[in-house]
Amino acid sequence: MLPWVPMTHTSHQLTLADIANHLGIAFSGNTQQPIRGLATLKDAQPDQVAFLANRAYLKDLATTQAAAVLLHPEHGKHCPVPRLEIDNPYLGYAQLSQLFDPLPARDIVGIHPTAVVAEDAQLGADVCIQAHAVIEAGAVLGDRAVIGAGSVVGADSIIGEATRLHANVTVCHGVVVGKRAILQSGCVIGGDGFGFAHDGAGWHKIAQLGGVVLGDDVEVGSCSSIDRGALGDTVIGNDVKIDSQVQIAHNVTIGDHSALAGCVGIAGSTKVGKHCMLGGGAGLSGHLTICDGVQVTGMSLVTNSIHTPGIYSSGTGAMANTQWRKNAVRFKQLDDIAKRLARLEKKQRD
Amino acid sequence: MLPWVPMTHTSHQLTLADIANHLGIAFSGNTQQPIRGLATLKDAQPDQVAFLANRAYLKDLATTQAAAVLLHPEHGKHCPVPRLEIDNPYLGYAQLSQLFDPLPARDIVGIHPTAVVAEDAQLGADVCIQAHAVIEAGAVLGDRAVIGAGSVVGADSIIGEATRLHANVTVCHGVVVGKRAILQSGCVIGGDGFGFAHDGAGWHKIAQLGGVVLGDDVEVGSCSSIDRGALGDTVIGNDVKIDSQVQIAHNVTIGDHSALAGCVGIAGSTKVGKHCMLGGGAGLSGHLTICDGVQVTGMSLVTNSIHTPGIYSSGTGAMANTQWRKNAVRFKQLDDIAKRLARLEKKQRD
Amino acid sequence: MLPWVPMTHTSHQLTLADIANHLGIAFSGNTQQPIRGLATLKDAQPDQVAFLANRAYLKDLATTQAAAVLLHPEHGKHCPVPRLEIDNPYLGYAQLSQLFDPLPARDIVGIHPTAVVAEDAQLGADVCIQAHAVIEAGAVLGDRAVIGAGSVVGADSIIGEATRLHANVTVCHGVVVGKRAILQSGCVIGGDGFGFAHDGAGWHKIAQLGGVVLGDDVEVGSCSSIDRGALGDTVIGNDVKIDSQVQIAHNVTIGDHSALAGCVGIAGSTKVGKHCMLGGGAGLSGHLTICDGVQVTGMSLVTNSIHTPGIYSSGTGAMANTQWRKNAVRFKQLDDIAKRLARLEKKQRD
Repeated sequence: MLPWVPMTHTSHQLTLADIANHLGIAFSGNTQQPIRGLATLKDAQPDQVAFLANRAYLKDLATTQAAAVLLHPEHGKHCPVPRLEIDNPYLGYAQLSQLFDPLPARDIVGIHPTAVVAEDAQLGADVCIQAHAVIEAGAVLGDRAVIGAGSVVGADSIIGEATRLHANVTVCHGVVVGKRAILQSGCVIGGDGFGFAHDGAGWHKIAQLGGVVLGDDVEVGSCSSIDRGALGDTVIGNDVKIDSQVQIAHNVTIGDHSALAGCVGIAGSTKVGKHCMLGGGAGLSGHLTICDGVQVTGMSLVTNSIHTPGIYSSGTGAMANTQWRKNAVRFKQLDDIAKRLARLEKKQRD
Repeated sequence: MLPWVPMTHTSHQLTLADIANHLGIAFSGNTQQPIRGLATLKDAQPDQVAFLANRAYLKDLATTQAAAVLLHPEHGKHCPVPRLEIDNPYLGYAQLSQLFDPLPARDIVGIHPTAVVAEDAQLGADVCIQAHAVIEAGAVLGDRAVIGAGSVVGADSIIGEATRLHANVTVCHGVVVGKRAILQSGCVIGGDGFGFAHDGAGWHKIAQLGGVVLGDDVEVGSCSSIDRGALGDTVIGNDVKIDSQVQIAHNVTIGDHSALAGCVGIAGSTKVGKHCMLGGGAGLSGHLTICDGVQVTGMSLVTNSIHTPGIYSSGTGAMANTQWRKNAVRFKQLDDIAKRLARLEKKQRD
Repeated sequence: MLPWVPMTHTSHQLTLADIANHLGIAFSGNTQQPIRGLATLKDAQPDQVAFLANRAYLKDLATTQAAAVLLHPEHGKHCPVPRLEIDNPYLGYAQLSQLFDPLPARDIVGIHPTAVVAEDAQLGADVCIQAHAVIEAGAVLGDRAVIGAGSVVGADSIIGEATRLHANVTVCHGVVVGKRAILQSGCVIGGDGFGFAHDGAGWHKIAQLGGVVLGDDVEVGSCSSIDRGALGDTVIGNDVKIDSQVQIAHNVTIGDHSALAGCVGIAGSTKVGKHCMLGGGAGLSGHLTICDGVQVTGMSLVTNSIHTPGIYSSGTGAMANTQWRKNAVRFKQLDDIAKRLARLEKKQRD
């Protein structure tokens, strides 16, 4: 059995030179300035790096106290402090953010004494299995996989290398998770899909015999659920990002690089293309095909397949309740209104 | 204490004869053909059984490679391979699917050494309590109950015979779960209902003194929550099927054989009848009565009681955003439009 | 290490005198009548106290069997049994309900032998850490905190005094929870916010470096998730009540005393004021400001900031599907209808 020993972390203080090197940017200024973190232009202290990625915050640039600012060259001349010029400052911010994440430094190589690991589980090099985690029979963990406290990896499931399950994650049996995936706490991968046959009186369960396959670099948010397939698998492509409280039903397919915001629900067997973006609370009916490059705005209901890339919406935004009541009641008369209008038009023409 | 020993499973290879016998169907053909699983007509290999339950897939029948096909007698003559004729092929598929579920074969009779079982808990025969599960004081498990890894059964709760809690399920205190129920990972049965009294300045919690009663043959999906009652119980009838990410508030009642798709939310004290079907993301306000046999389509909002069986809907489907914007802005003018139309009609008549 | 011993509870039988004293109400009648619980006017037995807080139930007063009724003085004369007169009977009911909650009597002072507590965790007086709970490095528990079975308190997180985590709760690293908070089972506080930068081909994760701060007297429902901030914190004010299945994205701020019903979703960086009430399934877009005293009705979509207190709504209620279909299709013609009406009006004027 592997030991349970903290990894040695030389948590050396980062300097501005480290920051610039990490981004591959030439930098002139006080390269030895210690940097303890990142902040917005407005909040940044003299030992923090800020960034300008959205013109709405340009107003905060002139007065920033940051040690340096990550920004597009076009804004360089307005920057009162040392600058880190980069074409995509938001991407630069993402890359820097990894340097300051405290979590990896907490990781430990080994198996906590309270973890339960099946004898026939296969563990890669330098895995971290935390307190009360359970690795069931036949499961496989890739190198450097991290299994958080209380998480369960079901029988015969495969967790890719450098993938992290936070605490209290459930990966059911027969699930494949790719490399460098991140599963947030409380999510469930591979619960049974919702399949029942009716005999005229009641329901008979259809055993869900498929699995779930998550690609590489997938993220699944807190308390989200991805159900296992009825016969074939539910398939989530590479680099798909799924927010919290999302429900993905059995046999859904999501194409690479798509992003699903919080509370999205996708019914069974629907296929979502690549590079799609589904807004918070959007709902997709079952058995649809959504082509690549589709964006659906928040809380929209999609009941038909979409074959043309673009932005799609439904619903109406909130208004004052008294105003809303008057309009909402008219919605029930809409067909009647349309018919009466047509009659008037006809009379007019006669 | 019970031992922790794998059950002996003679995982004998199934044959077509086994399949036909399981369904009680006469079958002529190679009854000794080994069958390793089920598949769609299109994907089936020569050692798999397929089924035709939906006319949309009739096109795949002629070219199927399946060992045999489960279908209605009316389609028998078009079947190029041995056939298993049955009036309700989808029901037959459900019945066969149970034969191929790998999960029951993994069950073990006994209590894992890391499980924590209160001294006064009552355990039926042949229960399976997996790693790190917790059975609190006064809880009762029926015969053959399976408690998954990391699941918690709260004080004084009762789990019916042959009921399965998957991993990381929480059944809070004072909850009754019937027989043959299936609780998927991450679901919570008996969390507090949302009850507070306002004193003019802030909130005072109302202790939720009721429980939850789940009938027999109930299924609850991943990450769903069923809250305990304020005074009386929240009651879920027999054979009610609840999908993932569903929220059922305190003192709701759901009649037998109803089915709730993913992301449904039902507010407090609403009564849903028998044989109802609620589409994904549908929302029901509190204190309503929904009669038997009601279907609500996906993402509809029900704010009034329903006294007539039938299908109910609200909302509008997604359309291209540019088109939607023009229409959505008119929604806010709908009352005005209706009034102007009435004025025109009046003028016309004058 | 603390012992693991049940607290001594003299679960003395409550009497009507105890009830009246708890509410600070003068009471004449059989003060020694034993009271075993609370019930509605209709269901109450002679050893239960009932309450009248809603005129809709006034009809049940005349025939109630309750030992006594909590009601407003104006209804006193109609009460056939001893009465407990109080200005806010619903508040009185809330206060009494606490007396009958069986859960606190179950609490035990100490650390269950299977719990894992980091050596450098700081534990207040009389904490209760239940089976298989995990307290990670640097975490701090206030006096009388209760950590339920299987719950995880992440590194460096702080749990306030008298706060209760039910079973299988996850508090991630670097989270602050105030005093007397209640976290229901399955909720996740401090999962990563949904932040990614796009490089033109795919996504780069933005490490979520902020935390979550929950105020005092906060309640979070089952399976709800509150994501950690990207740079600054996600902040939930004092006395905020959050129901089940709610999603709160990174850097959201919720003002004191607000209440969020089940299935609400709030996108990133939105600020909700004090004393707001969001109905079930309501959705708020990101980067909005909602002023104090706003109510949003169930399943409404808020896409713009709100600067005036009041009630806001969107959507339309469900109707029979056949009727709905005819109206919903007209929604797509609404702009056209409005234009045609304007043309008719113009002709009329000409």
